Amino acid sequence: MSERVNRQWRLAARPTGRVKESDLVLKEEPVGDPGENQVLIRVIYLSLDPTNRIWMAQDSYLPAVAIGGVMRGIAIGVVEESRNPAFSRGDLVQGLLGWQDYTLSDGTGLTRLPANPAIPLTAHLGLFGMIGLTAYVGVVDIGRPKAGETLVVSAAAGATGSLATQIGKIHGCRVVGIAGGPEKCGWLTGTLGLDAAIDYKNESVAEGLKRHCPKGIDIHFENVGGAILDAALDRINLRARIVLCGLISQYNATEPVCGLMRLERVLLNRARVEGFIVSDHLHRAAEAMADLGRWLVEGKIRYRVDVVDGLEQAPRALNRLFDGANIGKLMVRVSAEP
Amino acid sequence: MSERVNRQWRLAARPTGRVKESDLVLKEEPVGDPGENQVLIRVIYLSLDPTNRIWMAQDSYLPAVAIGGVMRGIAIGVVEESRNPAFSRGDLVQGLLGWQDYTLSDGTGLTRLPANPAIPLTAHLGLFGMIGLTAYVGVVDIGRPKAGETLVVSAAAGATGSLATQIGKIHGCRVVGIAGGPEKCGWLTGTLGLDAAIDYKNESVAEGLKRHCPKGIDIHFENVGGAILDAALDRINLRARIVLCGLISQYNATEPVCGLMRLERVLLNRARVEGFIVSDHLHRAAEAMADLGRWLVEGKIRYRVDVVDGLEQAPRALNRLFDGANIGKLMVRVSAEP
Repeated sequence: MSERVNRQWRLAARPTGRVKESDLVLKEEPVGDPGENQVLIRVIYLSLDPTNRIWMAQDSYLPAVAIGGVMRGIAIGVVEESRNPAFSRGDLVQGLLGWQDYTLSDGTGLTRLPANPAIPLTAHLGLFGMIGLTAYVGVVDIGRPKAGETLVVSAAAGATGSLATQIGKIHGCRVVGIAGGPEKCGWLTGTLGLDAAIDYKNESVAEGLKRHCPKGIDIHFENVGGAILDAALDRINLRARIVLCGLISQYNATEPVCGLMRLERVLLNRARVEGFIVSDHLHRAAEAMADLGRWLVEGKIRYRVDVVDGLEQAPRALNRLFDGANIGKLMVRVSAEP
Repeated sequence: MSERVNRQWRLAARPTGRVKESDLVLKEEPVGDPGENQVLIRVIYLSLDPTNRIWMAQDSYLPAVAIGGVMRGIAIGVVEESRNPAFSRGDLVQGLLGWQDYTLSDGTGLTRLPANPAIPLTAHLGLFGMIGLTAYVGVVDIGRPKAGETLVVSAAAGATGSLATQIGKIHGCRVVGIAGGPEKCGWLTGTLGLDAAIDYKNESVAEGLKRHCPKGIDIHFENVGGAILDAALDRINLRARIVLCGLISQYNATEPVCGLMRLERVLLNRARVEGFIVSDHLHRAAEAMADLGRWLVEGKIRYRVDVVDGLEQAPRALNRLFDGANIGKLMVRVSAEP
């Protein structure tokens, strides 16, 4: 019998507004031994994503997390014991392992990570994970960029946004990022090579878009929603594509908020607003990962990770996404890499 | 020298809210004789369309009508004198003839109507005109209906809406119309054969959509916007198409109004909101007219016209569109058919 203690963040209440400490409760219980066909996984890196807030609140593209249930989360872990012939002790795996130290799994939904020492483990939660695929599908398949077009990305210093901007550059677009604060904006224009960055905390987004998108906006990659989306709609060109990737400004809303004001801009410009969820596009993963890997080797794409230590920090760290405090992919280091 | 007097509605002011009598002024002046290469056209039927309100107010897909200029309008007329070899006296033509008794034209943008005594002249402003093409492109090309899907149409008893509903039926959809009042709703279900109609003046649209769209909404053809659009978004299915044809509820707005509240429904359902303007789709006209004509002969499609007598009635009649007072295609009889 295992003597391991498993800390688990369980959902105590559906959040109203910001996630509060009292919305989740950290429980401890012994983890059982794997049953027939099961593996015992130790969680190493837990991914924190804006969509976690949706999972806490409501049924959506996935059912809401049950009250009392372990909080759902994508994570990377290592197999510590296996009674499943498909997995061996020491295998590195990714899946919906949850906000906890350990998980028992029958292997459903688990992906074994390729053993490639050149790729840091954290990259599998970013560039080479769902985040990378999200940015790729959003820009390439939904946005359909043409060289010379102008792409605007909101939350451009975030995990998905920062990849989306660079994929736009690779496709020959003029790329303008919207982010909060001079550090993020400096990273976007300095390190990532964007044509311009707009610091929404210190300047008018509308003015910035006017100045930096002299030919208007052909593709708007939206992670935020609200006033930023309306400012972008005000500058869209004929047949613009508005790629709805996320609406983080609205996930904490406690009352109905307007999704977009300027719908007539969509009509009169014959534009398209299209939502997508990465899990519909897994058939694109092989091609996306091949392209992203090649671009990484060629120095055309860069990424950052933002690692917070300790499972106990997870709820507080999640709110950093909503405060815009992170640069790059936010995750929690739950335990040490093997 | 011609002795004809030409009455012209000229734009006096950009309307705020509803179009007021004082926003347009009826002037009289003699009409000149056609110059070299010109034709003199007597206007017979003047089309009134929600988009006229946009033309009065702002530059859009067409420049705004100039203050002091003759109000722009699609109309059918007859050539009374011609010094243009492409047109003969007696030819029936359609084009942007304007809100007036006569117009001089060099032929640019004029279409000669086919001489087919089986087609009433008024049908060229509806089924066999821009309205028919709008409904066709909106449903067939933007909505992409599949048999068994559910199509909802707002302003379903209007000129475009009533054709859109029937095109949906022809494609095997379950079709639910939203219209105001029992007469319109009775016409939709009784004469046009819709599966259901929701009387927004006397029942909750949300409740009606719940009752009449048990499998949700796959295509929403929007002519109205505002609360009706939000009620529809609340019922959309995965990968729904929201066809933005018009937003008549907003054209008279004097303050910014929310375009749509429930944008997260678009994201989470991976839906698409797409605006279109018929003039981008003229290459589809030949096929559309062939299909519409065949469906008319086969008894699969019906249309109504709503004819108001007298050019002097045009501004007042335009407001009937915004009051929902018309059934079918609204137009003004400016002069008698030849």
